[in-house]
Amino acid sequence: MSSLMAEFIGTMILILLGDGVVANVLLKKSKGENSGWIVITTGWALAVMIPAFIFGSVSGAHFNPALTIALAAIGKFSWAQVPGYIIAQMLGAIVGGALVWLTYLPHWKETEDKGAKLGIFCTGPAIRSYGANFLTEVIATALLVFAILGIGTQKPAEGLSTFVVGGLIWALGLSLGGPTGYALNPARDLGPRIAHAILPIAGKGDSDWAYSWVPILGPVVGGVLAALAFVAVF
Amino acid sequence: MSSLMAEFIGTMILILLGDGVVANVLLKKSKGENSGWIVITTGWALAVMIPAFIFGSVSGAHFNPALTIALAAIGKFSWAQVPGYIIAQMLGAIVGGALVWLTYLPHWKETEDKGAKLGIFCTGPAIRSYGANFLTEVIATALLVFAILGIGTQKPAEGLSTFVVGGLIWALGLSLGGPTGYALNPARDLGPRIAHAILPIAGKGDSDWAYSWVPILGPVVGGVLAALAFVAVF
Amino acid sequence: MSSLMAEFIGTMILILLGDGVVANVLLKKSKGENSGWIVITTGWALAVMIPAFIFGSVSGAHFNPALTIALAAIGKFSWAQVPGYIIAQMLGAIVGGALVWLTYLPHWKETEDKGAKLGIFCTGPAIRSYGANFLTEVIATALLVFAILGIGTQKPAEGLSTFVVGGLIWALGLSLGGPTGYALNPARDLGPRIAHAILPIAGKGDSDWAYSWVPILGPVVGGVLAALAFVAVF
Amino acid sequence: MSSLMAEFIGTMILILLGDGVVANVLLKKSKGENSGWIVITTGWALAVMIPAFIFGSVSGAHFNPALTIALAAIGKFSWAQVPGYIIAQMLGAIVGGALVWLTYLPHWKETEDKGAKLGIFCTGPAIRSYGANFLTEVIATALLVFAILGIGTQKPAEGLSTFVVGGLIWALGLSLGGPTGYALNPARDLGPRIAHAILPIAGKGDSDWAYSWVPILGPVVGGVLAALAFVAVF
Repeated sequence: MSSLMAEFIGTMILILLGDGVVANVLLKKSKGENSGWIVITTGWALAVMIPAFIFGSVSGAHFNPALTIALAAIGKFSWAQVPGYIIAQMLGAIVGGALVWLTYLPHWKETEDKGAKLGIFCTGPAIRSYGANFLTEVIATALLVFAILGIGTQKPAEGLSTFVVGGLIWALGLSLGGPTGYALNPARDLGPRIAHAILPIAGKGDSDWAYSWVPILGPVVGGVLAALAFVAVF
Repeated sequence: MSSLMAEFIGTMILILLGDGVVANVLLKKSKGENSGWIVITTGWALAVMIPAFIFGSVSGAHFNPALTIALAAIGKFSWAQVPGYIIAQMLGAIVGGALVWLTYLPHWKETEDKGAKLGIFCTGPAIRSYGANFLTEVIATALLVFAILGIGTQKPAEGLSTFVVGGLIWALGLSLGGPTGYALNPARDLGPRIAHAILPIAGKGDSDWAYSWVPILGPVVGGVLAALAFVAVF
Repeated sequence: MSSLMAEFIGTMILILLGDGVVANVLLKKSKGENSGWIVITTGWALAVMIPAFIFGSVSGAHFNPALTIALAAIGKFSWAQVPGYIIAQMLGAIVGGALVWLTYLPHWKETEDKGAKLGIFCTGPAIRSYGANFLTEVIATALLVFAILGIGTQKPAEGLSTFVVGGLIWALGLSLGGPTGYALNPARDLGPRIAHAILPIAGKGDSDWAYSWVPILGPVVGGVLAALAFVAVF
Repeated sequence: MSSLMAEFIGTMILILLGDGVVANVLLKKSKGENSGWIVITTGWALAVMIPAFIFGSVSGAHFNPALTIALAAIGKFSWAQVPGYIIAQMLGAIVGGALVWLTYLPHWKETEDKGAKLGIFCTGPAIRSYGANFLTEVIATALLVFAILGIGTQKPAEGLSTFVVGGLIWALGLSLGGPTGYALNPARDLGPRIAHAILPIAGKGDSDWAYSWVPILGPVVGGVLAALAFVAVF
């Protein structure tokens, strides 16, 4: 399998499982309706961990343009591969969003709340304040990238690092996800936002493009800063 | 131990623990009453992981006709063994359902809701729509089988793969279980449905045979499609 | 360290953490008040796993007379050591119960419910029905002992089996704990019941000695049956 | 990287993730508002585990003056390094507290409850009773230090011990965190308390200095007692 195919399928699974758990919690009549933050954060942690375990040895399991760019910024990934990775990630995220729509097909028209329907696909702020929301994404993604690089310095039993990465995603959601819903990843946000915009979702509202730059730029800035800081201190 | 005995006992434990957690959440006066989706999905994940750890080296720990058939479809399992495996899985699932009934014996007559009592044994749709319900089971089981095959390509520390499989089941329930209760497995659904039909459960209703084809055909179709897709891309 | 010291300290930690989580959930004004079944079952799983990891290589980490007797019944443990193990387990469980009382010292007099206070120390039935309660403990402990023996047949990466055992305890609580609160272990129930009886707990009620035989005999019968079944099939 | 830098960054991450999860649960309009004890305890467990995995091989990953002092008391750590470690831990904890304030910046003025805002930074008693609160911290930290030393006697697959330590923190919060919020660590409490005192947090109240000695002295006393007990019995 090519690394681009791995990034495409891996990001598709990431979004199918990640956006899927939000659908389960937010959509009316779903069996997981209102099951809360522990369900959402556990679902997202596993949404990263499962494809990371399968595709890590093929592509490095980025699934995230902010990580791809941050690794390139410190010479741990080739800039020449960056555009292909980002395209594969974006396409995977769009398809993953479409699969969530299909999986929960009868539930969209039962759900009145247009904001909830958008919130299944992409992130939005708990309190809209672009500067503060940007800062939250910078801090959380900085920790993500710094920790991934730090985990990479260790040599645990084969396969165990993937569990630490899963724990890291769990931690980021539990601890830092409150203000913005922890995008941490431009593909995770923009891909499904595009899916939301183009799919015939019953009773959908607008796709909140005004906010869409925050979960793109915040993670990229945070990721690059963290990578540079990592190189400086390790 | 023979592989058929392993499939029988393993599927029995799967259903005892899996249907047991639903009983704990849905039955009146149970100590876990109304403890929610995190309890149900964690219980099912462990219900797969524990017997998979014990019996994986004996039988491959299928416990699931959809997985058995999907593996056979791509030449990773002998068609000659398929009938025996499915019979062992079905018998284990029926006995497992009966053990759940015995474990919670005083609670059935305290519980009015006939649908809840059926929902302990087998799955049912959140919104009845056979085509959409079928599609949900196809997508979710496709991810199950694709991921199991993908996990099998890795060589982690001995025993660690079973934890990834447990995480996969957790993820599938958390993220994709909302519309249909994630059967993913014909034996998991049909076996306990038969147990529900034949056991003298206090105040039980009908066994909803009209829906029963969905969690049989959906998983088989999804599993085979995923196995073929896996062979095509890996 | 002697194996008896390991059984004593290990069972003390088991009860301090296990009864402690119930205290956290049931006692008034505790920070974990009403935090539910997921908290209780996770707490108990870790209450077993932590001392099992530390003391497994010293004593086998039984912490449970039902397991000790079951292993002796199939020749995997010396009958000569059984009395010492059981005494160490019982003493550890009593001291562990006393430590829970001290840890939550200001909370006992704030809590009106005498049944809740007893339920922190020992188990009780959701629906009192001695025969059915006994059967529940037999089935759940049979699965405990069968699975522990089955886990012991595998050779995973060093230390990983302890995590499977932790997962097993989690599963047993989540799935089979509803009717009786899953004693599974005579020392876990009788030891803290004795602590409840002799400690000057503010506003305590009686210690429900009428029920106390169920979580002693049920686990012993279930454990021995499972051990014999294991020898027969493996 | 120097061990002091590792203690500084590690403790910073510990507090960013640990205090962050409390912010998520307690602050108004946060997406994790009121998500409960399972979220708080899981967040804190991962807040220890992630930096412990990254920095364990550099500094031993103490992040806790009580552990540092306890190890020195039994000759497992050099007294000459103790002051530097404690300073690095304290500075990391202060910076971590400041990062939590920034991450949740728009939420402080939306939250009326001054006690909740303080409770994000440092611990406080469920029932104020200095002697009993001190005893709770002694018991819980004694178990922490005893178990860490006990875990260190085992030789599991590389990296697995860190997961056991994460499980230990999870257990301590779930089971013993009810009366005092489980400081277990003078830096975890005093550092963010200082951050609370000096930062311009919207609508903050006082920093409850009257209680601040409990989560300093309790953990130190408990930790040293446990280390001495460990040496005596192992």
